[in-house]
Order: sequence, then C-alpha cells, then structure tokens
Amino acid sequence: MATQGQVITCKAAVAYEPNKPLVIEDVQVAPPQAGEVRIKILFTALCHTDAYTWSGKDPEGLFPCILGHEAAGIVESVGEGVTEVQPGDHVIPCYQAECRECKFCKSGKTNLCGKVRTATGAGVMMNDRKSRFSINGKPIHHFMGTSTFSQYTVVHDVSVAKIDPQAPLDKVCLLGCGVPTGLGAVWNTAKVEPGAIVAIFGLGTVGLAVAEGAKSAGASRIIGVDIDSKKFDVAKNFGVTEFVNPKDYDKPIQQVLVDLTDGGVDYSFECIGNVSVMRAALECCHKGWGTSVIIGVAASGQEISTRPFQLVTGRVWKGTAFGGFKSRSQVPWLVDKYMKKEIKIDEYITHNLTLGDINKAFDLMHEGGCLRCVLKMNE
Amino acid sequence: MATQGQVITCKAAVAYEPNKPLVIEDVQVAPPQAGEVRIKILFTALCHTDAYTWSGKDPEGLFPCILGHEAAGIVESVGEGVTEVQPGDHVIPCYQAECRECKFCKSGKTNLCGKVRTATGAGVMMNDRKSRFSINGKPIHHFMGTSTFSQYTVVHDVSVAKIDPQAPLDKVCLLGCGVPTGLGAVWNTAKVEPGAIVAIFGLGTVGLAVAEGAKSAGASRIIGVDIDSKKFDVAKNFGVTEFVNPKDYDKPIQQVLVDLTDGGVDYSFECIGNVSVMRAALECCHKGWGTSVIIGVAASGQEISTRPFQLVTGRVWKGTAFGGFKSRSQVPWLVDKYMKKEIKIDEYITHNLTLGDINKAFDLMHEGGCLRCVLKMNE
Ligand SMILES: NC(=O)c1ccc[n+]([C@@H]2O[C@H](COP(=O)([O-])OP(=O)(O)OC[C@H]3O[C@@H](n4cnc5c(N)ncnc54)[C@H](O)[C@@H]3O)[C@@H](O)[C@H]2O)c1
Ligand SMILES: NC(=O)c1ccc[n+]([C@@H]2O[C@H](COP(=O)([O-])OP(=O)(O)OC[C@H]3O[C@@H](n4cnc5c(N)ncnc54)[C@H](O)[C@@H]3O)[C@@H](O)[C@H]2O)c1
Ligand SMILES: [Zn+2]
Ligand SMILES: [Zn+2]
Ligand SMILES: [Zn+2]
Ligand SMILES: [Zn+2]
Repeated sequence: MATQGQVITCKAAVAYEPNKPLVIEDVQVAPPQAGEVRIKILFTALCHTDAYTWSGKDPEGLFPCILGHEAAGIVESVGEGVTEVQPGDHVIPCYQAECRECKFCKSGKTNLCGKVRTATGAGVMMNDRKSRFSINGKPIHHFMGTSTFSQYTVVHDVSVAKIDPQAPLDKVCLLGCGVPTGLGAVWNTAKVEPGAIVAIFGLGTVGLAVAEGAKSAGASRIIGVDIDSKKFDVAKNFGVTEFVNPKDYDKPIQQVLVDLTDGGVDYSFECIGNVSVMRAALECCHKGWGTSVIIGVAASGQEISTRPFQLVTGRVWKGTAFGGFKSRSQVPWLVDKYMKKEIKIDEYITHNLTLGDINKAFDLMHEGGCLRCVLKMNE
Repeated sequence: MATQGQVITCKAAVAYEPNKPLVIEDVQVAPPQAGEVRIKILFTALCHTDAYTWSGKDPEGLFPCILGHEAAGIVESVGEGVTEVQPGDHVIPCYQAECRECKFCKSGKTNLCGKVRTATGAGVMMNDRKSRFSINGKPIHHFMGTSTFSQYTVVHDVSVAKIDPQAPLDKVCLLGCGVPTGLGAVWNTAKVEPGAIVAIFGLGTVGLAVAEGAKSAGASRIIGVDIDSKKFDVAKNFGVTEFVNPKDYDKPIQQVLVDLTDGGVDYSFECIGNVSVMRAALECCHKGWGTSVIIGVAASGQEISTRPFQLVTGRVWKGTAFGGFKSRSQVPWLVDKYMKKEIKIDEYITHNLTLGDINKAFDLMHEGGCLRCVLKMNE
C-alpha cells in the first residue's frame, strides 16, 4: 500500500480534558513497529467505558487521548515479525489481548492476558513505550490498547482478531465489547444450564446480551430488572420472560426476587455498575448454589459488601471481563455465529451516525432509547 | 431397652444465660416422637460455634439451652417410622441434616437441607414444635438440632449418621463438625487440584483440616497465616509448608502473599471469622482464577467488602458450611477413611476432660495450645 511505512494523517476524535466535548482533529498516526498492526477503522460504536473515562471518573484515565474500543476495520500495514494478519485482512481490535504465551493465557483458566497490559494501561505501545498518535509532534495517549475513535489506529498484534471478510463491519464492530461480554458472562463465567432461573439487573446492551445468552442456554425464566419500564418491550425480543421495576415495590428488590422464585434465582447478573445493585444481585440468589456475576463497572473507590453468611450458605460471587472470551480465538467464532444467524447484532444498533457527530452520540447514551450507536468513520 | 418409651433423667450442661457458666443439671429427656431418635452421647467436643452462642453474640441464640454439636454416641431408642437406625447403632449427630427429599437435597448442588431447619432454628423438634428437654417441667431449648452436652439427646432422624461400630467414639466425635468442615472446604467447595498454591488464614482445628485436605489434594505450596507463631510447629504435621505471621510485616497481608507467590494464590481459606481477614483472603488470590472460601463465622452484623474490580478481574468468592459434605451419606465415609488411616483425628485432640469440667473446657478454647477438647459424658 502507498501508505505503508509512512505517517498517516487522518481524522480522530480527541479527548483533551475530562468532560469537555471531543474535538475532531487531524492526527498523525505513526507506522506500526515490531509486533504492531495499523488498522483502518471503518466503524466504531460507543460503550459506557468510553463515557466513564471521558467523564473523568476513571482515576487511571490519561488525557489527551483517543477513546474507543468497539470497532471493526481493515489492516493497512503490519510491523516487523507480525505473521498472523496482513494488509487487507478484516479485523476487530480487542481491548483484551491474547498472546497465548503468558502465565494467564497458558493457565487455561482465564481470558485475561498479561502481555501488553502495562503498556495499554499507560496509554502507550510496548515496543518503545511511546504513543503512535500525535498532533504536530505532541503525543496523544492510546486508550485500552484500541483507540478506535480514529480513522487509523495502531494496536499490538496480540490484540487483533482476524474475521470472516464477508462479515458486515458496520454490524460486527459490536463484537468488540458489549455483546460478547453479556453472552460470555452466561456461557463462560456462570455456565447457565437448561431450566435455570436467571435474573438480569440492567437491560442495556450488556443486560440484553445476557438475556440472549441465557435464552440460548435454555434458562426457564429470565427475569429482567430495570428502573426504566420502557426497557421491557425491547427486552422481550432478547428472551426476557418477566419484568420487575424496583420502583413498583416497597420491599428491597432482593426480597422481591426471592419471593417470586420460591427462594431465589439460580444465576444473577449485574449489568449496571451500581454497588448496591451488586449486593442485591448476590442476595437474590438461591441459598446453597445461586451464583451472581458482576459485569457492570462501578465508579472508582466504591465497594461491594454483604454479610459473609450469604456466602457461607452457598452463594457464589464472581465477575467477568469481556465475558471470559479469549479475544483472538473466539471473536472470529462469534462473527461466524452471527453470519449463521445464531446470535443477534443488528437489534442492538439503535442509531447510526458519523465520526463528526461523536459528541451527539455520547449524549444519546444517556437516553433510554439508545442501545448502541455505530459511527461511520470515513464520512 | 428398659428406658424405651420412658422419660430419662440424666446429666446435662445447661446454658441458662449468655456468658454465665454452664450448670450441670439433672434434665428430663422425653422419648423420641415420630421421626426422632434418642441418643446416648458418649463423647462430645467443643467447637467455636458453641462458644459463640454461649457468649450471647449470636442474635438467634435461645436460652436456656443445651449446647454442643460435635459428638458421638449410641442409639437408645427410636420413634415411630424411623427405619434407618435402631437401638444399639453407633451414630454421629449432625447439625446439618440430610433428608434426601427436599429441594436442597435433590438439587445435587448443596449439602444444606431444608427439612428441619425451621424447627432446629427455633430450638424445638418438628413434630410438635416443642422441646424434648425439661427440668421439673420447664422446657430447655435444643441447639443446632443436636444438643450434645447432655448424656441423652433427641434428634431428627434426618440428622443421624450411622457409623462403623468398630470406630472409637472418643475420636470420631470430631467428625461432627470441625474436621469435615476443613477437609470438605478443600475437596468439595474449592476443589483444589494438584500443584495448586493454597493460603490458609487461621491455624486452629478448621485451618489445620484445610491443610490436611490441601496436602491430600496435591497442593504444591500450603501457606499458613496466623498471628500466633506458636501454631507453626503443629501446623507442619498437617501439611503447612510455609508460615506467615502478619505481625512481621508492615505491608497488608494480601500484598505479602501476592509478593510471595508471583501474583497471588490459587485458593485461600478464611478459618477465623474475621471480616477484614476475609477481605485479605480474597485479595491475595491470583487475578484471573483465584478462589477464596469463607469458613469462619463472623460476629453478627459484620459485613465483608471489597472493590468489585477484584471479582471482575476473575477472583471468585465462596463460602462453605460443614465443608459441603452431605452429613448422613458422607460422615460414615469419613469414619471409614479414619479407620483406614487416610485422615487424621487423634492429632486434633489436645485435651480430654469430663462433662463436669465443661466450663474449664470453654476456658481452654481461648488458649493457643488447645485444638479440640473431648469430654467423656458418663464420668
Ligand atoms: N465487565 C466487562 O467486561 C464490561 C464490558 C462492557 C461493559 N461493562 C459495563 O456493563 C455495564 C452495562 O453496560 P451497558 O452498555 O449495557 O449500559 P446501559 O447504561 O445501556 O444499561 C444500564 C441499564 O441499567 C438500568 N439501571 C440503572 N440503574 C438501575 C438500578 N438501580 N436498578 C435497575 N436498573 C438500573 C438503566 O435503566 C439501563 O437500562 C456498564 O457499567 C459497563 O461499563 C462491563
Ligand atoms: N462454616 C462452617 O461450617 C464452620 C464449621 C466449624 C467452624 N467454623 C468456624 O471456623 C472458624 C475457625 O474455627 P477453629 O475451631 O479452627 O478456631 P480457632 O479459634 O481454633 O482457630 C482460629 C485461629 O485463627 C488465628 N487468628 C486469629 N485472628 C487472626 C488474624 N487476624 N490473622 C491470622 N490468624 C488469626 C488464631 O491464632 C487461631 O489459631 C470459627 O469462626 C468457627 O466458628 C465454621
Ligand atoms: Zn466496552
Ligand atoms: Zn497472554
Ligand atoms: Zn462446629
Ligand atoms: Zn433435605
């Protein structure tokens, strides 16, 4: 390609300061170094983790930066030693890397990979611990090792999932975060079995993906809990069979669910990021075996708590990151499942905008009717 | 037997009020009603749960009562419909019932049985919701469905494990609580696998049984944590390979363990009942898979807490009651393992006294050198 080995100047949305509107800028994207891949991003969606860091509430947030981690694109060029992808490959950048070599990857027990974590946490690339993004020579931080709010981005090769080139990138971009997180929480983390009773707290994209996963796992009852009753109509299409709005009850919500289910649910999922709901989600579980999975990301500094008796009497408290999916190995498998119509994606996309509208897209996230907004990058 | 169908008057230690010395009294023990078994208790040990209720800290404690739940004896008579044991059988009363019929027993997922819980929690028997113990007509409450600090007790048939008549009752009485709890926490709740790194917080009877269980499961490192360094010599004999006294460090104990183990332990067990140690036990677990099991019973009203991020990054928080063992089915199996010298019991018994010395036995529990004190009942 003509751009290979060259600095590319393209459009990106830059977050200069917490809580200030993103600015569409011309940024310089350096060529990929050893073990790196430069990707032309075609579509990106917004996720709450972007909003969380942008809001300034994330104590590890670094500014200025380029946010974004739910996207799809095409490899533009690769650095030295990169063998698993080549220019032209269709890919999904993955904030959760998979190196297949570290203690984590080899454990067979987790999808968390340690290989590039210290670099991605510091907003830089491993090779020289510098950023590939700059504006007139001033570096701009990477974010989550993905930075997909840019027409071109550079990622580590261990963070790239190569997918079916037939897959529509404006849809499968969602497989970069929210949808796999919900499905995997059910399939990998909780391992819900046929006949189980499931409660889902929060019916946004993640909660709906949990519902879809629970339905496909054969759950007998899928109880959706949300303070916004408007969520129920959509939720039915994803498999939710009953709806509970905590505002309709005087009792604590955990008691409402215990009463509804003759002792509690088999599995519960917190898909909000609210520590008191996390407690309720644990405590609505059935004594003896009920398992609660935390998916939501709570504000920094907040803590969960409960009486230890809840655990001594058999409840289990877990959490999940990216639904326990191994990114490079399993994102392509999820793309294939979508192509075979075995999982939904289109139904989560409520809005389509362009990169230039990104601030409007952030505003939309706070509106009840928005699940995922997909941005077209090349306007 | 001559006593069958008759009220038996015998010696028992009665707790009239919290924190006041127990009183050895002549108590009347009524004959067993339908589904009940009257047992001549030959040996009983003391456990911290007895001390906890006796102290008055247990909000569900009922007085006056007859405490005790770690014992062995011989069936004296049985009530109507009791088929699984008969007079003369050697038995261990089990505070955790197993009816094989309730939702819990049939779930295949837990050892908690719901059948007689409402009665045992109220200090009475199911049949007429009355006590079988009285002194001059005034009822004395049952405790944990066992009340073994009496020469004769009445229990529900679902709470009686029939054991090998060759087994020495002065030893196997320990299989009523502490030892199975520790072994089962490892084998049933955590399912520790060969090569695993294990941390044990608290090296009393329960912690030492965890060590024994971990050793037999093939753990590669068994790290004992106790604030009493004298515990280490004994602990070695139970399989502990390394010893850490939190008092020797300025750093939080979870950090000490993470540093010692290149990222954290695979399994941790809290065997104290201290909520801040429960937090440390979770947080010393390895990211991605570390599992922490709460065994200790915390003071009423106390809560555990942590940052939800600990769970989102793959740690699992669990608890166990009676080590997950199904009492009637598995206590006899544990007795057989003891007879085949596959598990220790004798090594936990540091003191032997008689029922009349029970207050001294309670005092001994606060001394570092005491693991289990066994009382001979028929003086
Ligand atoms: N663990 C992971 O790997 C991972 C990945 C992606 C997202 N997340 C997190 O998952 C969470 C959910 O993401 P989303 O995109 O679905 O969010 P969302 O905002 O679209 O959905 C949240 C839902 O919760 C409802 N809600 C809010 N407060 C509530 C309460 N007190 N009781 C009941 N319902 C309540 C809202 O009405 C909304 O429907 C976020 O915290 C996000 O950061 C985690
Ligand atoms: N879950 C169950 O089914 C079950 C069954 C039996 C006992 N228990 C509970 O298990 C716990 C342990 O029982 P036990 O008989 O072994 O008790 P124990 O008192 O003999 O042992 C506790 C040990 O913890 C140590 N310790 C105290 N504070 C400590 C601290 N801050 N850090 C490190 N070590 C500390 C003590 O020195 C002692 O060695 C009790 O809370 C008991 O009620 C639970
Ligand atoms: Zn996300
Ligand atoms: Zn790795
Ligand atoms: Zn006990
Ligand atoms: Zn039962």
